[in-house]
Amino acid sequence: MSNAVGVDVGGTKIAAGVVDEHGAIVEKVRRPSPKNDPVALREVVQDLVTEIRSRHDVVAVGIGAAGFVSADRRRVLFAPHLQFGDEPIADLLQDALGLPVAIENDGNAAAWAEYSFGAGRGVPDQLMVAIGTGIGGGLILGGEIYRGGHGVAAEIGHLGIVPEGRPCQCGRRGCWEEYASGSSLTFHARTAAREGRAPHLLAAAGGDPASVTGSMVTELARAGEPESLALFAELANWLGLGLASLVAVLDPTLVVLGGGVSEAGDLLLEPVRAALAREVTGGSRRPLPEVTLAALGNDAGLIGAADLTRKIEA
Amino acid sequence: MSNAVGVDVGGTKIAAGVVDEHGAIVEKVRRPSPKNDPVALREVVQDLVTEIRSRHDVVAVGIGAAGFVSADRRRVLFAPHLQFGDEPIADLLQDALGLPVAIENDGNAAAWAEYSFGAGRGVPDQLMVAIGTGIGGGLILGGEIYRGGHGVAAEIGHLGIVPEGRPCQCGRRGCWEEYASGSSLTFHARTAAREGRAPHLLAAAGGDPASVTGSMVTELARAGEPESLALFAELANWLGLGLASLVAVLDPTLVVLGGGVSEAGDLLLEPVRAALAREVTGGSRRPLPEVTLAALGNDAGLIGAADLTRKIEA
Repeated sequence: MSNAVGVDVGGTKIAAGVVDEHGAIVEKVRRPSPKNDPVALREVVQDLVTEIRSRHDVVAVGIGAAGFVSADRRRVLFAPHLQFGDEPIADLLQDALGLPVAIENDGNAAAWAEYSFGAGRGVPDQLMVAIGTGIGGGLILGGEIYRGGHGVAAEIGHLGIVPEGRPCQCGRRGCWEEYASGSSLTFHARTAAREGRAPHLLAAAGGDPASVTGSMVTELARAGEPESLALFAELANWLGLGLASLVAVLDPTLVVLGGGVSEAGDLLLEPVRAALAREVTGGSRRPLPEVTLAALGNDAGLIGAADLTRKIEA
Repeated sequence: MSNAVGVDVGGTKIAAGVVDEHGAIVEKVRRPSPKNDPVALREVVQDLVTEIRSRHDVVAVGIGAAGFVSADRRRVLFAPHLQFGDEPIADLLQDALGLPVAIENDGNAAAWAEYSFGAGRGVPDQLMVAIGTGIGGGLILGGEIYRGGHGVAAEIGHLGIVPEGRPCQCGRRGCWEEYASGSSLTFHARTAAREGRAPHLLAAAGGDPASVTGSMVTELARAGEPESLALFAELANWLGLGLASLVAVLDPTLVVLGGGVSEAGDLLLEPVRAALAREVTGGSRRPLPEVTLAALGNDAGLIGAADLTRKIEA
């Protein structure tokens, strides 16, 4: 068995896992993400990998990063949610660890994992939509990750959806992830709680609107609470609107919905399917992609990054 | 030399041309498009091909259609601007003509022509944006037309750009082509003329706002007339906004601007480049595609359709 380490560098935590050739996680460790400190971030990754490899034989390390990764997969060019610095982080870690290291956009990594081991097995043309803090994406075309001309394709969270719309952390306005991500769900839920429109959510959060979480919305919506259901319906509408554009451009066979928000399951899936069918040009006159839920949950990025790096070494 | 016929079925006219293996048009004939009459439309295509093949040896016929074409390239599934009917038009014409016939989306055909013989020669990953009555698109990935999972990829004119925006002929609202096509340029120019904001345009149109054309706007803008320049600047802004989304998703190496509006040349090219650089996420932190003008003008669709059909027969 040739195991590889996958590292998921997220906005709140960094997780490292040993992944076997079947995409199974053998062991996983995690730590909080250092804020605004590229050196500390690199040290945490190094420490986590050092810890976990003391207990497992591993051949390579793949780092999934929520950002624009250079075509040579050595550095992060641009990351709205995290600071990776300008250094070739893959080279620095490779030297420090004495193991092959590559960086992969986390959406690409998640798409690869779902295609290889998850909900998209055997479907050569598929789009991954990872709905979490932002919206990540990955595109599998002809059974390969489609990386684009400069390595930064599938940044679907920055589809422009409202001209002069809400400010996005990327510096632009009106990006899709400002309307259809987990953060936007939480933002609207807190606003509703603060404005007295969501008494059940407020109660679930112990009376503090700022403590409302996406999971609370999911839980209450599952129980049929109307305001939480309305919040999901709005999210699904925005997701459908963006998906309609992506389907017009890409015409995928399959769309896999992943990321933390996809844990809401059918609560998300059914209204998104309906919104896509309603919003897409050609409607019933054109074939639509299947839309399904990711199978690997929040581990997809970590599993995919490990597997992709193992493949470089193979 | 193996010649093929390319047919360009447009909203106002149908053109058929004999295309040689180097992409050159040997002879071209044309007729007005019948409105709302699929049978008459097919008859015009048949007559034009019959006429032109009486003077040339041809091996196949390719029809470029502004619509969603079935994956088997036998029929048009959906066309906002023209009525093709539900019949397998390629089979009917093939039987009538005794020649191999295939239908191709006109944006795909134009992209193929520019890649094979025009502005995009030798660039394996490129996006064609054909700005005419609507906005057509074609995507070349790895030196092949990217057709998507169901044959209807690259319908970029129906990128959603304004939620609940202007009604589009496709039945939805807020599609890109309602803001950034030749029709929208003409619409805004006529409105400006009608409202007294564009006296030079009104004069060029002999005092009748409804007679203002896109070419008049181009000509006056070239002469530096401020209102016409402002109309182009607005068009370029909307083009840049949509392109920013397409670049985020597709990360092409090259964007080729074609269609009738691209005949405005640098008047269009420079402001579109500027708008893309301003609107795209990651701005100066990410590599941008080159943006260039198409080389084959309005013949691109006809040339590409002929060449693609010839290749099936080869």
